Amino acid sequence: MDAETFRRFGHEVVDWVANYLQEVEHYPVLSPVSPGEVREQLPSSPPPVGETMEAILGDFQDIILPGITHWNHPRFFAYFPANNSGPSILAELLSAGLGVNAMLWQTSPAATELEELVMDWLRQMLNLPSSFRGVIQDTASTATLCALLCARERLSGFQINAHGFSAWSEQGPLRVYASREAHSSVEKGLKIAGFGAGNLVLVSVDENYGMDPQDLEKRIQEDREQGFNPCCVTATVGTTSSTALDPLRPIGEIAQRHGVWFHVDAALAGSAAILPEKRWILDGIELADSLVFNPHKWLFTNFDCSAFFCRHPEVLTATFSILPEYLKTDIDRQVTNFRDWGIQLGRRFRALKLWFVLRYYGVEGLQEMLREHLALAQEFKEWIEESRDFELLAPVPLNTICFRFQPGMRSGQDLPSEELERLNKALLDEVNRSGRIYMTHTRLGDNFCLRLSIGQTQTRREHVVQAWESLQGSQTVQSMH
Amino acid sequence: MDAETFRRFGHEVVDWVANYLQEVEHYPVLSPVSPGEVREQLPSSPPPVGETMEAILGDFQDIILPGITHWNHPRFFAYFPANNSGPSILAELLSAGLGVNAMLWQTSPAATELEELVMDWLRQMLNLPSSFRGVIQDTASTATLCALLCARERLSGFQINAHGFSAWSEQGPLRVYASREAHSSVEKGLKIAGFGAGNLVLVSVDENYGMDPQDLEKRIQEDREQGFNPCCVTATVGTTSSTALDPLRPIGEIAQRHGVWFHVDAALAGSAAILPEKRWILDGIELADSLVFNPHKWLFTNFDCSAFFCRHPEVLTATFSILPEYLKTDIDRQVTNFRDWGIQLGRRFRALKLWFVLRYYGVEGLQEMLREHLALAQEFKEWIEESRDFELLAPVPLNTICFRFQPGMRSGQDLPSEELERLNKALLDEVNRSGRIYMTHTRLGDNFCLRLSIGQTQTRREHVVQAWESLQGSQTVQSMH
Repeated sequence: MDAETFRRFGHEVVDWVANYLQEVEHYPVLSPVSPGEVREQLPSSPPPVGETMEAILGDFQDIILPGITHWNHPRFFAYFPANNSGPSILAELLSAGLGVNAMLWQTSPAATELEELVMDWLRQMLNLPSSFRGVIQDTASTATLCALLCARERLSGFQINAHGFSAWSEQGPLRVYASREAHSSVEKGLKIAGFGAGNLVLVSVDENYGMDPQDLEKRIQEDREQGFNPCCVTATVGTTSSTALDPLRPIGEIAQRHGVWFHVDAALAGSAAILPEKRWILDGIELADSLVFNPHKWLFTNFDCSAFFCRHPEVLTATFSILPEYLKTDIDRQVTNFRDWGIQLGRRFRALKLWFVLRYYGVEGLQEMLREHLALAQEFKEWIEESRDFELLAPVPLNTICFRFQPGMRSGQDLPSEELERLNKALLDEVNRSGRIYMTHTRLGDNFCLRLSIGQTQTRREHVVQAWESLQGSQTVQSMH
Repeated sequence: MDAETFRRFGHEVVDWVANYLQEVEHYPVLSPVSPGEVREQLPSSPPPVGETMEAILGDFQDIILPGITHWNHPRFFAYFPANNSGPSILAELLSAGLGVNAMLWQTSPAATELEELVMDWLRQMLNLPSSFRGVIQDTASTATLCALLCARERLSGFQINAHGFSAWSEQGPLRVYASREAHSSVEKGLKIAGFGAGNLVLVSVDENYGMDPQDLEKRIQEDREQGFNPCCVTATVGTTSSTALDPLRPIGEIAQRHGVWFHVDAALAGSAAILPEKRWILDGIELADSLVFNPHKWLFTNFDCSAFFCRHPEVLTATFSILPEYLKTDIDRQVTNFRDWGIQLGRRFRALKLWFVLRYYGVEGLQEMLREHLALAQEFKEWIEESRDFELLAPVPLNTICFRFQPGMRSGQDLPSEELERLNKALLDEVNRSGRIYMTHTRLGDNFCLRLSIGQTQTRREHVVQAWESLQGSQTVQSMH
């Protein structure tokens, strides 16, 4: 494609994205297509000869777009926010144009040095000790796996890397501790890294769904007595279900006392710690060995961009470094080669978009946007509390509200839980199919919960009001009156 | 950032990228900056208040750009091509704008269905059996790790996933086989997955640096006799050093005979198999259990986009699936949820750029561009063969030439190998510092080799001629005449 053709269609695509972001509110949030509907409209074999960009962009509009669930939609309240922003998209375009691989310093010095810089900016914004060094990973799943591998290698003196678990098996199985509310990536990491899912010890939670440190210590002690090797504890700051907060300080003190790696998964909630009034959620973080949080969730940076901090970069690089002849450079001792800071060799130039976002909005601008999301969540929580039909199912420390429709409240007669689950599933299905809002569910204890997660870039008070109206005005709710 | 501001700067950035791709030839290929030079020009703390896009783009131009090594440059001959194209960049911009997460079918049906479709298009282009199912991974490192994990779990009956290696240790260590020329990601994968680097058995290579199947079989048999568990063999189609080709059919037959998972790493070279006259490099691929090749290397798709095929998707998904309540959807049984096809939960919408590239160029257009690269490599090889000062150090089956300056050839007196290494390092350093071309090195046996890898989108005959002239005209070479 020559420069003029690129320029012509580039302008067209920029206009398309600008219009899209302006009009996204008018699309159904959740794609209404049925399984197979997109694929069956497309040829089953690749085209033998090239096609025009007009034809490709036309099919994008007519066939792909209806199959998109709009994560940028101001009424996207599902899962977690994956918020996005103009400066981030522009930087992603530049990064795609440059097409550099940030695997070594030499393969683009600016990509490595900018990554070091912006990760240090984030460190300052979160008020982490200067001993924390940062690297951008693709996802929190990967970052948590990196933490588990560091824990495994530090404990085994790098013997599992060298000789495998087989050489280590006489020492007894390695154990990892996380609360019952921890993310599924912890269990997945245990499988990948060879610990086995059965060596994940699920620690009890308190009534707010935060980890109970006493139960943690008890389980570590019991494991030691039974010949297991306590290796790592993962605390969650902002669980996926309800943004519950594990208390870092007591957990960190226990980890330190037992010589266990202390990893903190703040994938969603870490962003909130840039607010002075919310920094307490990371109280005790100086005891952590590693921390992950995702600017691609709630810091206006498009996916993927996961910030991984480690207090022992020498353990991290000893865990991951490889040095075949064809990757050696003359200056390996003077520079950071991020290929040694994680699983992948090849690395995208992700620092650019983070740099664009942090500069365009500034720390205060980002704080202001997060404060608005938090205030909207509190307001929605109050509507639930004041309602005669809905009840809150967990505290709301951040941006996510867990609740359910409970029509029995009016009459003082709670419905049986199966009936409640059936009703709330019907309600969820109804509002999601309407295309007006998109929410997801979870389970807390035995309770089936609706979840409303607030954090999209364009979400304003009116959209949260509309979500509330959609729920209240639904057939499922109205038919019970 | 409002739509009008996005539009305005979007047009500016598109023009910048168009100009950049047109003028990239005029930049030094290898960035000339010194360690720390980029970072020290930037503020050490994040800006408290937002800045203008003009300021950010100005710093991008003045500070970041000089620190970029230009992978798009037509005289980039280092490492491997990471070629790029207009349609790929445009699709990446759309993907960033949509900002969807392709973790589940429901979180954007079109992202999942398009990924299934374009991976099947690639399967057809490579003439793979229809039993191969594809998924896009970020890198070949990740894909090879996935293959190792599938091999581990199939052999252990999913017991290592469930209970860890500790529960499996009585069975004896698991062994993995690869040639001495295999990529470092195989060893790294063994570490991550808990096999241990010491359980990588390096199989001998023949005079062309391809794996010796007889040695493979011998080592598997010896291992069995000694109580090891042969688990996986990784064959390389196109090694990193010299694009050597392991013979798939005999290796596959041995793997089958011994019940060992057979993974094929064709990260670079797989693209060449879309040419009917080069399809023989994959002869025997129907015996493989998995295959990876990277459209982000040599198929005009910007990084990252790694194509992973597996003949046992049920093993792959059993290895990686997790299903916490908050990710369940009503249609999980009817659709593909790619979160279960790899390590990460969150996934970018990468299929879009592959679809744009395959449609814009068509199969024949892609074939034509690859044929040109292959012809240029043969021509460069002939220049080396005809030269009185340079010698070829490996066969050139594809796009990469391994050679060295050998001034003793004129006089019939070979220089000692230390002297040759010193001279060739000086030559490499000199031409790379000139900014005119960028090459890297490797080692084959005891020989230090210069490597010229041809495959950038804009590389034409004149650029390969210029590379040859740069080498011949260098001070290092001239001073020896």
